[in-house]
Parts: sequence; structure tokens; C-alpha cells
Amino acid sequence: MERHAYAVIIAGGKGTRFWPLSRPQHPKQLLKILSGKSLIRETVDRTVPLFGSRNTLVVTVAEHYHALRREIPVLPERNFVVEPQGNNTAPCIGLAALEVAARDPDAVMAILPADHWVPDPGSFSRALRGALRLARSGGSLVTIGIRPSYPETGYGYILKGKRFKGPGGVPCYRVNGFKEKPTRQRAALLVRRGSLWNSGMFVWKASTILEMLRRFSPPIARSLERIQTAMRDKGLANPSASLRAVVRREYRRMPKVSIDYAVLEKAGAAGRLLALEGRFGWSDVGSWAAAHRMLPHDGKGNAGLGKWLGFKSKDCLVYSRDRLVALLGVQGLVVVDTEDALLIAAMERSQEVRELVEELKRRGYGRYTVR
Amino acid sequence: MERHAYAVIIAGGKGTRFWPLSRPQHPKQLLKILSGKSLIRETVDRTVPLFGSRNTLVVTVAEHYHALRREIPVLPERNFVVEPQGNNTAPCIGLAALEVAARDPDAVMAILPADHWVPDPGSFSRALRGALRLARSGGSLVTIGIRPSYPETGYGYILKGKRFKGPGGVPCYRVNGFKEKPTRQRAALLVRRGSLWNSGMFVWKASTILEMLRRFSPPIARSLERIQTAMRDKGLANPSASLRAVVRREYRRMPKVSIDYAVLEKAGAAGRLLALEGRFGWSDVGSWAAAHRMLPHDGKGNAGLGKWLGFKSKDCLVYSRDRLVALLGVQGLVVVDTEDALLIAAMERSQEVRELVEELKRRGYGRYTVR
Repeated sequence: MERHAYAVIIAGGKGTRFWPLSRPQHPKQLLKILSGKSLIRETVDRTVPLFGSRNTLVVTVAEHYHALRREIPVLPERNFVVEPQGNNTAPCIGLAALEVAARDPDAVMAILPADHWVPDPGSFSRALRGALRLARSGGSLVTIGIRPSYPETGYGYILKGKRFKGPGGVPCYRVNGFKEKPTRQRAALLVRRGSLWNSGMFVWKASTILEMLRRFSPPIARSLERIQTAMRDKGLANPSASLRAVVRREYRRMPKVSIDYAVLEKAGAAGRLLALEGRFGWSDVGSWAAAHRMLPHDGKGNAGLGKWLGFKSKDCLVYSRDRLVALLGVQGLVVVDTEDALLIAAMERSQEVRELVEELKRRGYGRYTVR
Repeated sequence: MERHAYAVIIAGGKGTRFWPLSRPQHPKQLLKILSGKSLIRETVDRTVPLFGSRNTLVVTVAEHYHALRREIPVLPERNFVVEPQGNNTAPCIGLAALEVAARDPDAVMAILPADHWVPDPGSFSRALRGALRLARSGGSLVTIGIRPSYPETGYGYILKGKRFKGPGGVPCYRVNGFKEKPTRQRAALLVRRGSLWNSGMFVWKASTILEMLRRFSPPIARSLERIQTAMRDKGLANPSASLRAVVRREYRRMPKVSIDYAVLEKAGAAGRLLALEGRFGWSDVGSWAAAHRMLPHDGKGNAGLGKWLGFKSKDCLVYSRDRLVALLGVQGLVVVDTEDALLIAAMERSQEVRELVEELKRRGYGRYTVR
């Protein structure tokens, strides 16, 4: 078990892309897309052996709080930090850093998205341990980059600078910059050059990220300082009415920006950002097509959960609920059956589910997008 | 209203091709595939104005009797003739002829399948009236042929012989022969030559068809005579135990053949079969693809019943039940949602639903094929 270390699981996502399984009250991290366990449960199961349940925090928004507590009863109530609204990742991570610093001013924290897929927890743990040592040893920010397995255009890429040997000989790099969602051609070039996928997993001391926010994002830092003053060295869980009011006020005030934009790009340019190369399977599970890639397939590329039969069909993904789903002579489809709605989409267009949800609202089917 | 005339609606079909809507206990004639009314209800609604409900008979098998009575309460109980088992059309039509002859030895009868689609009841009635007059005037068998609207390969074709003017100037022909389910090329040739679709609608005197059965199909005729003797001039509805036993015994004995094979082909060769050319829209609704052709389409060729949205999709057929069905970026699909099972099939392969049903049984999903 790591000492003076916290896992901070970021569980704010909406997951409109997983309609009809995901709904505002039932976001992606609560879905059992890849196994019998929800994505957040898988995440917690990966972190608790490393950090312990006492030191595993979850940051979420009010509307998901109760569902998350039910889903992960292993974590104590005081480990849930509730944001008054979703403000993108920089305020969220800043708030989590205040909580960690209040508990242990010298602690290192690992920021972990709640809804990612990591099939090999052993390799993941080794990489995370290395990143914790690296973050502890200097005053640097550490991002875990993933060695790409194919030129994905939906991800951001980390451009590697000077290489050095990290803890235990893990390959590490200074970060030269980032490239968000490249074209197909550009993605292929990035993969050839050894750039890494930006996983959204970061490791640093709470004190370091707060320092970096002061340096690179003063408006957020000022809001965080006002919150910190209101905390009076207590945690953020079960906040007093006055603390809650301060957090709410500062959340309305803070710029809604990502940690990448608020800090990492600038820290990279200032030579304060390192990347540790993770060589484990990973995906952000960003669409039905991504889920299809990750699930085990039958001999014809079909995958699914529930009761289904892919007769004379190939490359399909099926989620059935109580009903039997029978495919006949079809190809490249996503079929998702829920209690009140059913999606049948072309696999290669599963990124457009968000648009479909908007169209449903326009057509008077809004109630099927919220329940 | 026609006098000395009976409609005999043949309602024995299983309709495996309409799984998952059709099940053994819920065959095609009971489905509401094309409107809010079941196919048999539509059929009865077409015939009752012509024949009256007293003179509209339904022939079915025991397992469908109760569902049919519920579906068409307008017909009296004694108008349902129940076969002990499905024996193909020759025994069925022979049995109906016995019932009609018992009621009115001189009556003409129109054989009408329960599960066909006729969008223009007016034109249909005119053709049927013509056929009744034609069948009454001589000792001939009359089949209603349909002028084809395209070269369908799933139908049988009537090869026309000498033309003559039928009642009211309707074009009629001697029948030279039949061609079952031609190849695509052959179907195109048949259409060019003016051959007619064999609709399975026939008109003749009860006495004529019984005579023809004696001549061309003696084993069936002998069984029918034994049944007729047991009837003692009473009808077949509410049969006595002894009559029921005779029918059951003869049904086990009779060859299970179609009326086309048992009588019509031979009657045609003997110059005793006439065809009246019907120029009304008609389909045997033989597959989901056929249903798709008949339903009104949106601007992109999508059709359906229930709650559905065809977003960026075309040429699809959707039957939804309670759920909302949302399509995204798909084409040429049949989607049929039922309480316990869901079919997603390629439109052009919807003839293979029968195979799918067999596969479901092999895979242990038999219960979804029967309920």
C-alpha cells in the first residue's frame, strides 16, 4: 500500500454517447458496458489495493452523488467530494487537491477518470507506482501516457521530449506539447513518431498542482484559496452551510477549463511536465464502437452482453436486457435494448449518438433521453 | 348481396416468416402488420358485405380456433369449420365444400386466404362478383389471377390460354398451366407475356370442386365421401363425437397436398379451369420485405408502426411495441420489437426468418419461438 498517497477518481461524466443506456441520472461511469461491473466499480477495484479505501476519493456532482454512493459502498461517506456543478477538470482537480492537502499536506495524488477501461490491473498498478515515485521525488507534474496500439483520431496525443529512465527503469519523457484529436493521417504520423495517448491520468503532489495553478491559472487559484480559507483545515465532505455557499459562489466564478489547458500545456512549456509511458491496454470507452473493440468477439466479430444471437451476421455489438435479440444477415450494427428505448446504429456512426439524442428531443421524444 | 354464395376463408397459416410477431399461437392472419386491424379482420370486412356474415365461413385448425373467434366475433360459431390438423389446401377446401354443399347443394363458393392484402376493396368486390357469375354459369373452376405489377419470384404464375370476355367484360382466359416461383429472369419473361400471379383465390360450385376431386384426386374424394356420410346432411360445426372421430381418421389418411397439385393443374389440362384477370393491388404478404413495400413510406423509404425515429436512415421497416425505436445511420433493415424478443434483419434476407427460427430452437432459445 502506498503511503502519503491518494487516489482521486473523477466521476463527473454525462455519457450522452451511450444513449439509450446512459441517461442524465445514469451516466457512463455507472454503466456495465464491458463486464458485469460498472466502470467506476472497476476503477475503484483497481485503486483500493494501492491506496486503500480511506485514501480513495471520488469527486462528483450533486446529481450523481447518491447513485455513486450506492454503487461503491466500500468508500466512506467522507471520501466523496461533491462539486456544486460540473466546471470541467481544472476546478475539479483543484478542489480535490484542497481536500488532499487538508488531510496530508505532503501527499501525492493520482487523478484517475472513473470511466476508463484497463484490462490488465497488474501492469496498470506498476505504471501508477512508478508515477507516484516520480511525482514524489521532484516538484514535477506527471502524466501517464499510453503507448498507442493504433492511430485513434478521437484521442489527444502527448509529444515526447527528452527521454530518461524513470523509477524501476520505466521509460519517461519530458513533455514537449500536446496534439488534440488529429486527422487520420496525422494520427498515423504521431504513432510512428512514438507519441503517446493522453490518458487523462495524472500524478502529482497536492502542493505542486496548487502551486502550478497559482502560477498558470491565477483566477482558479484565487477561488481555490477562498475555498481553502473557508475550509479552516477541515475536509470538504459534509461541508457546513457557509462552506457550501463559498464553494457554490466560487464555482460560478471560476473559468470552466480543462487541466490540460489551465496548467499542463504551460507546465510542459516550462519544463515541469513529465510523461511516464504506460504499456498497458487502455481506452477511454468513448463510443459504442470503442466498447465493441474491447469486448470479446465471436468468430465473426460479434460481441455483446445479454441474450443475443448473431445469425449470418458480423461485426455487431448487442446489449440486450430482458429480451432476446436476434440478428439476421446484418453487419456493423450497434443494437442496444433498454426498458423503454432501443437503439440501432451503424457502428461507424456511433459517435453521432449525441446528435440523435438532440433530434429525439426536437421530435418530442425527450422523455426517452432523460429517464 | 350475392345469393347461393359462400365465402370460405382459409385461416390455417403459421406465419413463421413473421417471427417474432408471429408465433404458433399467434399466426400471421392475426397480426396487425399493415394497419390497426388484423389481416383476417380485413379479410372478413371485405367479404361480409358481399356474402353476409351467415354465409362467411372460416376453416382453421383447432389450435387457432379460440383466437380467431375472439378476433372476428361478427361470425356465428357454426361458421367455423375446424380441421383436426393442417393437411395443406386440398383436404381443407374439400371439407369446406362438404359444409357448403350440406347447407346449399347448388351454392357457389369463393375460397379466400385469410392473410392477404387487398388495398382496394371496391375493385376486389367487382372481380369477385365476376368470378361468382362465371363459376355459376358453367361447370368450371375459376381462379382469380392478378395482373403483376413487378416480376416477383416468390409467387406462382398462371399461364394464360384462349381469351374471352367474362361477365361485365372482364378479361378471362382458359388456363394453360402454372409456373411456380420462377427465377428472376423467368419472372420478367412471364410478366412480359402477360402471365398472372396465382393469388390462391378460387371460385367454384361446391358440387363442381367435389366432382373434380373425384375425378383427379380419388383418395381425397373417398375420404371426403366417408366424412359426408358421417355428417348425415348436418354441418361440420359442433360435430358429434362420432363425426369428429371420422374426420380425424380421414385426415390422418388423406394425402397432404395442395389444391393446385390435386386438382387445378389437371383441370387446366382438361380445359376445365378458367382465370379471371383481377386488376387490383394484391400481395400475399409473404415476408417482412413485402410488408415494407405495402406500408406508407417517409421521404427516405422508411416505414413502420409504433414509436420510431429513422435518423439519417433509409429503406427501413420498424415495428415497435411499447419502446421507442431509434435508428441511426442504417439502411435496409427490418426491426421488429416484441415483448420478449427483438429481430434485426437485413431486408433482402427477410425470407430467411424461418431459418433463423430453426437456429433459435437449436441454440436453446426455443421458448422465444413459441410464446
